[in-house]
Amino acid sequence: MTDTATFVDTDTIEKQLKAAREAIAARENVDRVVLTACGGSYANMLPIEYFLDTRATSLEPRAINAAEFTSRSSSRIDENTVVVLCSHSGNTPETVAAATHARQRGALTVSFTFDPTSPLATESDLVIAYQHGEGKSEAHVGPTLLLRLAAGMLDDVDGAEVAADVDAAVASMTTLVPATRDAFSASANEWAHKNRRENLIYTMGAGSNYGAAYAFAVCLLQEMQWVHSAGIHAGEYFHGPFEITDVDVPFIALLGLDATRPVEQRAIDFVTRYSDNVLIIDANDFGLESVPESVRGDVAHLLFNTVLRTHADALADHRGHPLSVRRYMWRMAY
Amino acid sequence: MTDTATFVDTDTIEKQLKAAREAIAARENVDRVVLTACGGSYANMLPIEYFLDTRATSLEPRAINAAEFTSRSSSRIDENTVVVLCSHSGNTPETVAAATHARQRGALTVSFTFDPTSPLATESDLVIAYQHGEGKSEAHVGPTLLLRLAAGMLDDVDGAEVAADVDAAVASMTTLVPATRDAFSASANEWAHKNRRENLIYTMGAGSNYGAAYAFAVCLLQEMQWVHSAGIHAGEYFHGPFEITDVDVPFIALLGLDATRPVEQRAIDFVTRYSDNVLIIDANDFGLESVPESVRGDVAHLLFNTVLRTHADALADHRGHPLSVRRYMWRMAY
Repeated sequence: MTDTATFVDTDTIEKQLKAAREAIAARENVDRVVLTACGGSYANMLPIEYFLDTRATSLEPRAINAAEFTSRSSSRIDENTVVVLCSHSGNTPETVAAATHARQRGALTVSFTFDPTSPLATESDLVIAYQHGEGKSEAHVGPTLLLRLAAGMLDDVDGAEVAADVDAAVASMTTLVPATRDAFSASANEWAHKNRRENLIYTMGAGSNYGAAYAFAVCLLQEMQWVHSAGIHAGEYFHGPFEITDVDVPFIALLGLDATRPVEQRAIDFVTRYSDNVLIIDANDFGLESVPESVRGDVAHLLFNTVLRTHADALADHRGHPLSVRRYMWRMAY
Repeated sequence: MTDTATFVDTDTIEKQLKAAREAIAARENVDRVVLTACGGSYANMLPIEYFLDTRATSLEPRAINAAEFTSRSSSRIDENTVVVLCSHSGNTPETVAAATHARQRGALTVSFTFDPTSPLATESDLVIAYQHGEGKSEAHVGPTLLLRLAAGMLDDVDGAEVAADVDAAVASMTTLVPATRDAFSASANEWAHKNRRENLIYTMGAGSNYGAAYAFAVCLLQEMQWVHSAGIHAGEYFHGPFEITDVDVPFIALLGLDATRPVEQRAIDFVTRYSDNVLIIDANDFGLESVPESVRGDVAHLLFNTVLRTHADALADHRGHPLSVRRYMWRMAY
């Protein structure tokens, strides 16, 4: 949307991140972290829920769509709850309403947005601006900062000692993201050419990578390419979805580095037997050997996003349908 | 699978339910309820999560696929956790493994299954058998008993005083289910005839009805009809999926009676403007005036399941593809 706008400098972002960590640590008895947003921003919350759920001892995380969050009005949102929100423009009405709702319930609200002067920023106790577009630091985009805040919370509230490793892994994204994009560029182009006439492509993943699979299905394929899709959880695949597998049904299957890799591998072993059109993206090919082993599985989604975006760019090119085209979004009120 | 097998009598089921409530109440400091299963049984957990999340003061609920649950191994499963599991056959390997994992972590395990002698029952601390197939009581099927256990937990642990209303609402299902099935039979047949050649049908819902939409997508359409589908959350619809809406893209949209009805209504207002093929199923047509108003929204999913199954039966008939046909399930090892 505002790719070419000026973004907040990294020094300011670091100060905002520090202020958010301190405000959370200053709240006594924080025991619940709600991660709420819509669409692509909601998808970015899913790996954070996984990260917290597998490491937190006193914090209970939940990722939830912002409209669902506000309307259902969970009975346990209070001053012991931290609500983390994200909207790129900071104008998403459901996410702004969620911030208002959370503050009225006494929760501490921390918002991530590209625009620190947006309604979401104004409605929230704390804001962390992120970079986007030409010239951005790959270590200061929304998903990396979300992960760093979560790691900081774990250190401050649970004494987890994981933030240093996460910070180191995130810092390496400035080299890993462009390197991974380059490494997958030729194969992405080949895949896109082969699949340019497909009107349905399923995606699949589990654990901290399910969000990347879901985001590709709803934001890249459905929204930006008008290609039918669904983000299938690899553990759910065998309990319904696998019956639509056939020789000509295209799948993109993610193979990550966290504890759910065997769940993803089992689905891949099946889908590749009965479909001739499966793209497997394996995080072992992302060059993550250079980041601390303890958090490799938790940062793989950052590079799945990169690799999937590379495939979307190539698909858009071969379909003659730019990713920026919409028929409803931005064109009308709804 | 075992539709014609003899099922457990209702007196025994009531005793099992009571025993499970007592065992949970006897555990001090229970603060977490994990609801885990696969596919259709997982979908049945989603309205329970909604029910608990909107009413519990001391319990934190989470619904999660069983393979994801076991592999990610959440850091907070302990003796203060109740893990509720469900598998119709009681043989689902991932769900049995989840029960084993939960018990090893010290959690109290309560399993729902058709077969009280199955591996899942054996692996669990407590079992609640449910009825299924010819001659069953509609008040003693899996989804109704799950809801009653959740309501009982709320009464016993949180002093919620909701179980009496839920029990009354569930008891009325013995008349409401057949009445609703009859009321929708003709329109379901008409819809099925019209849509018999469609190879993709989306479903949509929110709140306590999202599970019914998801189950129809993955179990009835993908699994039993080999029709492409995705269960779209109505709050997520505007953030990606709505861009694939077009005059000829079929949707089934649920309109429930809980606090998320406005979220569902907003999506329906949009999708009906741009698609000529939207089936709206409104819980106001389910005759729920006879059940306590306080829990109407929480039991609507039971009748969405009924109405959706009626549509699936009709679709199967017009497509000449019985719901019992599979190409992979039960036919091979995987």
